[in-house]
Amino acid sequence: MNDAQTAELVQAYYDSWKEGIESFDEARLRRILAPDLHFEGPISGSRDDAEPFLLGLADFVRSVQSYQPLQQVAAGDQASALYDCALSPSGGTMRFAEFFRVRDGRIQELRLLYDPNEFRRLRHPRG
Amino acid sequence: MNDAQTAELVQAYYDSWKEGIESFDEARLRRILAPDLHFEGPISGSRDDAEPFLLGLADFVRSVQSYQPLQQVAAGDQASALYDCALSPSGGTMRFAEFFRVRDGRIQELRLLYDPNEFRRLRHPRG
Repeated sequence: MNDAQTAELVQAYYDSWKEGIESFDEARLRRILAPDLHFEGPISGSRDDAEPFLLGLADFVRSVQSYQPLQQVAAGDQASALYDCALSPSGGTMRFAEFFRVRDGRIQELRLLYDPNEFRRLRHPRG
Repeated sequence: MNDAQTAELVQAYYDSWKEGIESFDEARLRRILAPDLHFEGPISGSRDDAEPFLLGLADFVRSVQSYQPLQQVAAGDQASALYDCALSPSGGTMRFAEFFRVRDGRIQELRLLYDPNEFRRLRHPRG
């Protein structure tokens, strides 16, 4: 895939959830993500299956109050994105970095980085 | 700058410290980084000055036991990198994501993401 195709695929991924759970488009995400998606994240660790990823993404998106893209880079079959999200119920904002590899028109690998303690704190504030 | 020039500049940045404090090349880093570098990081917050960044980088590099690049993406005046570092004294490995904007042959903006609690834990283990 060329730079523009890769950028378009990554943009389609964000367009499938960035407006929160009302915008969550599971059918579209199944076309975007390879079934054996390799995922690495701070809380879930490493997996090679799009299904648990989709469950985790839906759970995350239920708490997304706003999505603010900061930077997106795409070159060949690789891409990356940096963004901030405000999360309910606290309304606090935190930062996320995502790195992608694409193949045959789908996202084959997705590595996500964020502060897991801040994530838990914003989603489960104790006052 | 084109993709290759941007990739080369970012690689020069890592080559200036990735082998640990013995390899730390402050003079080279001063040629790579804009004097008014915009930096954002999980512990330091936001700054527009390369000098405190260089102090912080030297402090970090003193603890770098190994550097493992995972992914680098460069397109136009933007770039990103994902890498793991093993840190002393614990020897534990953690992940870093860095997003760059370059201008006039220098890194103008650098946004760094990592887990600050894990960082403190690996550098100051309490047994």
